Amino acid sequence: MSKVLVIHGPNLNLLGRREPDIYGQQTLEEINQAIRQKAQELGLSAEMFQSNHEGDLVDRIQEAAAEAEAIIINPGAFTHYSIALRDAIQAARLPTVEVHLTNIYGREEFRQTSVTAGACVGLLAGFGVQSYLLALEAVAHLLGGKQAG
Amino acid sequence: MSKVLVIHGPNLNLLGRREPDIYGQQTLEEINQAIRQKAQELGLSAEMFQSNHEGDLVDRIQEAAAEAEAIIINPGAFTHYSIALRDAIQAARLPTVEVHLTNIYGREEFRQTSVTAGACVGLLAGFGVQSYLLALEAVAHLLGGKQAG
Amino acid sequence: MSKVLVIHGPNLNLLGRREPDIYGQQTLEEINQAIRQKAQELGLSAEMFQSNHEGDLVDRIQEAAAEAEAIIINPGAFTHYSIALRDAIQAARLPTVEVHLTNIYGREEFRQTSVTAGACVGLLAGFGVQSYLLALEAVAHLLGGKQAG
Amino acid sequence: MSKVLVIHGPNLNLLGRREPDIYGQQTLEEINQAIRQKAQELGLSAEMFQSNHEGDLVDRIQEAAAEAEAIIINPGAFTHYSIALRDAIQAARLPTVEVHLTNIYGREEFRQTSVTAGACVGLLAGFGVQSYLLALEAVAHLLGGKQAG
Amino acid sequence: MSKVLVIHGPNLNLLGRREPDIYGQQTLEEINQAIRQKAQELGLSAEMFQSNHEGDLVDRIQEAAAEAEAIIINPGAFTHYSIALRDAIQAARLPTVEVHLTNIYGREEFRQTSVTAGACVGLLAGFGVQSYLLALEAVAHLLGGKQAG
Amino acid sequence: MSKVLVIHGPNLNLLGRREPDIYGQQTLEEINQAIRQKAQELGLSAEMFQSNHEGDLVDRIQEAAAEAEAIIINPGAFTHYSIALRDAIQAARLPTVEVHLTNIYGREEFRQTSVTAGACVGLLAGFGVQSYLLALEAVAHLLGGKQAG
Amino acid sequence: MSKVLVIHGPNLNLLGRREPDIYGQQTLEEINQAIRQKAQELGLSAEMFQSNHEGDLVDRIQEAAAEAEAIIINPGAFTHYSIALRDAIQAARLPTVEVHLTNIYGREEFRQTSVTAGACVGLLAGFGVQSYLLALEAVAHLLGGKQAG
Amino acid sequence: MSKVLVIHGPNLNLLGRREPDIYGQQTLEEINQAIRQKAQELGLSAEMFQSNHEGDLVDRIQEAAAEAEAIIINPGAFTHYSIALRDAIQAARLPTVEVHLTNIYGREEFRQTSVTAGACVGLLAGFGVQSYLLALEAVAHLLGGKQAG
Amino acid sequence: MSKVLVIHGPNLNLLGRREPDIYGQQTLEEINQAIRQKAQELGLSAEMFQSNHEGDLVDRIQEAAAEAEAIIINPGAFTHYSIALRDAIQAARLPTVEVHLTNIYGREEFRQTSVTAGACVGLLAGFGVQSYLLALEAVAHLLGGKQAG
Amino acid sequence: MSKVLVIHGPNLNLLGRREPDIYGQQTLEEINQAIRQKAQELGLSAEMFQSNHEGDLVDRIQEAAAEAEAIIINPGAFTHYSIALRDAIQAARLPTVEVHLTNIYGREEFRQTSVTAGACVGLLAGFGVQSYLLALEAVAHLLGGKQAG
Amino acid sequence: MSKVLVIHGPNLNLLGRREPDIYGQQTLEEINQAIRQKAQELGLSAEMFQSNHEGDLVDRIQEAAAEAEAIIINPGAFTHYSIALRDAIQAARLPTVEVHLTNIYGREEFRQTSVTAGACVGLLAGFGVQSYLLALEAVAHLLGGKQAG
Amino acid sequence: MSKVLVIHGPNLNLLGRREPDIYGQQTLEEINQAIRQKAQELGLSAEMFQSNHEGDLVDRIQEAAAEAEAIIINPGAFTHYSIALRDAIQAARLPTVEVHLTNIYGREEFRQTSVTAGACVGLLAGFGVQSYLLALEAVAHLLGGKQAG
Repeated sequence: MSKVLVIHGPNLNLLGRREPDIYGQQTLEEINQAIRQKAQELGLSAEMFQSNHEGDLVDRIQEAAAEAEAIIINPGAFTHYSIALRDAIQAARLPTVEVHLTNIYGREEFRQTSVTAGACVGLLAGFGVQSYLLALEAVAHLLGGKQAG
Repeated sequence: MSKVLVIHGPNLNLLGRREPDIYGQQTLEEINQAIRQKAQELGLSAEMFQSNHEGDLVDRIQEAAAEAEAIIINPGAFTHYSIALRDAIQAARLPTVEVHLTNIYGREEFRQTSVTAGACVGLLAGFGVQSYLLALEAVAHLLGGKQAG
Repeated sequence: MSKVLVIHGPNLNLLGRREPDIYGQQTLEEINQAIRQKAQELGLSAEMFQSNHEGDLVDRIQEAAAEAEAIIINPGAFTHYSIALRDAIQAARLPTVEVHLTNIYGREEFRQTSVTAGACVGLLAGFGVQSYLLALEAVAHLLGGKQAG
Repeated sequence: MSKVLVIHGPNLNLLGRREPDIYGQQTLEEINQAIRQKAQELGLSAEMFQSNHEGDLVDRIQEAAAEAEAIIINPGAFTHYSIALRDAIQAARLPTVEVHLTNIYGREEFRQTSVTAGACVGLLAGFGVQSYLLALEAVAHLLGGKQAG
Repeated sequence: MSKVLVIHGPNLNLLGRREPDIYGQQTLEEINQAIRQKAQELGLSAEMFQSNHEGDLVDRIQEAAAEAEAIIINPGAFTHYSIALRDAIQAARLPTVEVHLTNIYGREEFRQTSVTAGACVGLLAGFGVQSYLLALEAVAHLLGGKQAG
Repeated sequence: MSKVLVIHGPNLNLLGRREPDIYGQQTLEEINQAIRQKAQELGLSAEMFQSNHEGDLVDRIQEAAAEAEAIIINPGAFTHYSIALRDAIQAARLPTVEVHLTNIYGREEFRQTSVTAGACVGLLAGFGVQSYLLALEAVAHLLGGKQAG
Repeated sequence: MSKVLVIHGPNLNLLGRREPDIYGQQTLEEINQAIRQKAQELGLSAEMFQSNHEGDLVDRIQEAAAEAEAIIINPGAFTHYSIALRDAIQAARLPTVEVHLTNIYGREEFRQTSVTAGACVGLLAGFGVQSYLLALEAVAHLLGGKQAG
Repeated sequence: MSKVLVIHGPNLNLLGRREPDIYGQQTLEEINQAIRQKAQELGLSAEMFQSNHEGDLVDRIQEAAAEAEAIIINPGAFTHYSIALRDAIQAARLPTVEVHLTNIYGREEFRQTSVTAGACVGLLAGFGVQSYLLALEAVAHLLGGKQAG
Repeated sequence: MSKVLVIHGPNLNLLGRREPDIYGQQTLEEINQAIRQKAQELGLSAEMFQSNHEGDLVDRIQEAAAEAEAIIINPGAFTHYSIALRDAIQAARLPTVEVHLTNIYGREEFRQTSVTAGACVGLLAGFGVQSYLLALEAVAHLLGGKQAG
Repeated sequence: MSKVLVIHGPNLNLLGRREPDIYGQQTLEEINQAIRQKAQELGLSAEMFQSNHEGDLVDRIQEAAAEAEAIIINPGAFTHYSIALRDAIQAARLPTVEVHLTNIYGREEFRQTSVTAGACVGLLAGFGVQSYLLALEAVAHLLGGKQAG
Repeated sequence: MSKVLVIHGPNLNLLGRREPDIYGQQTLEEINQAIRQKAQELGLSAEMFQSNHEGDLVDRIQEAAAEAEAIIINPGAFTHYSIALRDAIQAARLPTVEVHLTNIYGREEFRQTSVTAGACVGLLAGFGVQSYLLALEAVAHLLGGKQAG
Repeated sequence: MSKVLVIHGPNLNLLGRREPDIYGQQTLEEINQAIRQKAQELGLSAEMFQSNHEGDLVDRIQEAAAEAEAIIINPGAFTHYSIALRDAIQAARLPTVEVHLTNIYGREEFRQTSVTAGACVGLLAGFGVQSYLLALEAVAHLLGGKQAG
């Protein structure tokens, strides 16, 4: 059973409490629960990791190279400046999908670009929790596993 | 049964023939076939439309406001400059999802931004045909229909 | 009786339905009616044309050179990128007035500039339907016809 | 009878003498005369004010808030840098119309933008003296008084 | 006999009438006549196409892929913003030469760059009708046909 | 017999040896031979000059004003920064044609603009040696000599 | 007893009336009263000055050099473009503190920078009337007088 | 007794040793001592936290949401690029004041802007240790506690 | 005897006191004395005017058009933003020379450009008081009076 | 024996595995071995430190100030945005040399600048492992120890 | 008798022939004659040097350091890009004055800045031949020789 | 014995005399002597070349392609604009190392980038004469000769 590492960047541990009108009402735990269930349906195993530390995310991605087969990452604020994260993704050589809860093109100008996406297979943005679930399907397809849907 | 309008922008009628190493081997007809089948699975009805004419796309989006419940659009090259298309999407007031076959962040600099995405719910990019199929699931979820996956 | 061609650009056929809090409650037909009446008062004949197609607008402006004596144009979204429209206006060598329903300086940054206005006599923006009616008066004055007011 | 304050910015006292090929042959006094007459026709009372001093214009706009019902302003060179003027207009909370004798989009690049227009209802540019007269009609309409034309 | 598609972009149908001091005195028909004759001398067959519609140009280029062996294109105003045209040229995989009647580097700043040229073999600009005739020779050479001159 | 000065800028003496995949296999001597022959066919006399020194090119262009009737110049790297060369071309008041072996719009961004072209009649780029030969024809036409082709 | 000159820039005389949701409900007179009282507590003498005229502010700052020991200035809109004010502050060689009622970083982009602050000791922004009172304490400290708090 | 969390960003633990001509002679411990005393005077409880780790600061701000009533933060170098910190501040929904020992407008250009300030109530810069003490007073006022001064 | 108006902009009344290491030790009165003497030697009459008010400078330049034959102006800080001053100079149609005590290219970046110089005959910068005296000679020459030197 | 701290930034622990065509085949351990040996030859003691955490690097540099005499740092991705690292280097007041395995000027545009280098003595880039060894020699020379070579 | 080196940059040898409406009717020889005479009047010895070669100008300035006491330079087109010239001027440590025949602020945008002026004492521009003569006076004054005028 | 060509760009012949506080006290001859000695130690033969002429440097690099095995170049001011030099380096296809005496990142902004480095193997900057000596070692290593150190 293929393992997918799901990485949540800074401040995403606050979900449900942080500006719920923007980021939604679900807590990170509830989202992780939904991810786990969806993964199971797709015949995947999902492992979650959250940190507010850029270095922890880099460390975790490096480890993933040896133990996981794909990465789904919501880099949060790091999307916009962490070249270190981009380098880690590129070095891991795993199919990686970038997700955002919100549509970055509908927000402040400094949130409308991504330095990490260039090292990923693709990105999904704007669908709330569904962004993660659809990313799982994309990953399932990329791994040639149970077809999306 | 909710109807989804799937719009393909300029040069997408060439799929399968146009730079297959970048855009994939499938023809537009094959992609449309996959979309139709996926829509059916999701309890949706999909109608496809392709044009190389910005005005035709605007016209079609305007008509959609009265007859469809959601739009999936791959604006192709128009992504990067057609404010008219953006305005049409905004005026239609339908949930709209932007899709790209390729990861725009991994291409030429002038393809790394979108003027249309700001008027959409969200975007998916980089998953080839799957971009459309995942967009269908996103739409299904947005319409509260059969849940994704 | 001098003929004035009044051109409405993309998505203006949606007036009354499209974001009425921004663009007003009147439909394009009602606006055209007001324009016709005002033209009559000024001893002018007004002919209206709307299209979502940049090429149609260019074609129509080219024809106008032979049959009309002035142009009033609301280029809509094309204001911000259609150099083709600018060239058509410049080539027509008719006195042309650019109008906008809304004050472009009070909107998104990408709407705060005009590539077409440089080929016009002048512009009016921000007065709703009055923008067209005042433009008619400006045209009447430019043609030396019945004085404004 | 509604009072409209008509403000002329720096160097406009030189009209008729200053580069008449650009700004026209009429003196400011003649223009003011035309404005007074037009106002009368529209059932409005017009009061004129000209100064080369940014501070005087700000002072006058502040006073206007208590004694006039609308403002027509040609900010001249201040159009391009006087945020103080913009703030004064915004604070006055009166319907304000910006006018220019010339088409700012047809001139030097540093004249093609306006920092003041964002605080106004709308702007008219390029019609010479008619810019003021049409602005009066716009104001008449905004005040719900005698209809334009 | 190799067929060359010669495409004229927006407003070029006005040649001879439109600003003759800039674009020359010859009508498009006369230019086409000169192109036809020159093609014949070079053992080529030339087919002309003009449209003010970006979509028509894209459609025509797509068809050309199957029926012509080279393209000569004067994209007119589209030179500066039509990424759709660029994509069509790139997808057609035919040797394509961009031509301009005038020297784009001697004109307004917004005309001094080309988004389409990057998809072409090369470009010629500034020689009036000769730009087309020299482009024909370039094409003849590229096709290995009758040598230029 | 009209004399044309053909100027080759810096590093063009290396042709045939320098990155032949980009600049072609022919040596400068072979190219000059082709130019001479083509000139003869056109009833022109061609004199060649190459230097890696900006000052030498300026000197030679100044002398040309008195002894030649046209200039063909490939400014090489100077295309992108030598205002001195531009001034020399402008001062010579001879019809001058800029040529490039490669299509500058298909190369690094810093090669996609020309400071010298603004002082020329026109430019040709992307046709290898043919760029020079076609330029000769353009010159022949400009001088009213034997018609191109 | 050290004298502090407190300078209020353009439109600040409107406080309490001008956009109270942004600038607060207190009038300038009430604010001045609070400043006077606070100064007294700190063993300082405060003199207030307001003008909408850049020149008046410059004049007043020049005079201050001879009669005051510190300056507190809210340059209002001049913050963003008055180099003359900056020069006056720099020339006065008095410890000067810049204050803003609102947090300039939370407002329009053109309000997010200060050309005057570079000539000051420091700045305070975003605390409403408290911005002035805290500035007084800062000044008291800078003058070595009664310690803040 | 309201608790205020005082956060010192990277390299601030070096105070007193690091470029004392710029940052002053006092050590962080001495500064914290002054902060504690001032807080006591104002009826507040101050807790200090310093880290060179962006993630630690984000963690600490998240915890503060539950245990403190206000934040004073000197983000040090993070001021200029840490969007993660900005997001943490915004999510905490506590009144937050940004402080700088030095006047950022008087330093290198890359230090003259703040990405974090937009999420704060206001900022103070340039007063050395007093920046913190005045911030405490601002916080006291914001919390409606013992009035500043 | 030709009259020259010599205008000193904001803060120049502080000369001798304001940063003497940058602007020199001489007071404005001493400089004016030197100007008067030099003018006399050149057969010119010099009238001096200083103000910190942009509007006063504009007023004075307007009056000069009727009573003086040339203007020498040191716009001080206004050099960098006063388009009103530029317009006044342009409207006066008198030969005008811009002077600066210091070399603007050797100072802060925001002082390295001039919006006023474009309306002048020429400029001198960097020679201290000599900038004015040399400007007088330039003016004498422009007026065809006693030759410089 | 002088101690040199050698710092490796984020993702450098992956050397040998990460894109070996770009970064080379040697592992970090092998590189460290080479550094140790080279240091010994130069009479220096080298201590290595690697972390993916910006904060760890800052902490380590701070400690180095007390225990080492020089720093060699390859900041990896932090080169391009970590002002905190720059500040730490500057505060340490030790001679610091920046090294890069690759030539940053031959890579993506966002890698062609360094915010940290401004706080260093100098930099070396493009020589693979030799970059470190040559940096050691540079440090030996700076410390006046055994001469390079 | 102090020697002044007067350097004329590229294309200035064409004076009198090159665009006389811009650069004047006098030849360089006539200008040099005027310079020599003026120098004599001022008790200076002037030596002239002209070259179209940047390197020659650098060589000559280097020699000047040993044999002249001041430099007057019109760098022509090199003004806008020759950092080598700037470095040579700075290294020579002689008082250097930059002159231009025309007012650079009244010309094309790429001529409105100077990279060389930052290494000079000051500059004069816009007075034709008088620019050189006034520069001589400035030099005379700088050398403490016969006073200007 | 491998020959290394060491090229010194403009104004480097002044070393020892030119701003010694920036560039050091050693003359170019002394530096060359140190280079020769170091080369000998490394089993290399070094030939030096200095010129202030861009064209001479290009010529010399072209010749080097046939007679040397590596190049060390300090392009001086040409670093920042000479694309011709970059092209020459690229065409020579020899391992080339760029050196600077000073740390370009610690100087004026216009010196903080390099157009030539992109065509080199790597660069060293900031170590004074050591920059050359370390570059020699780098070259020795690249040539597989006597190992560095």
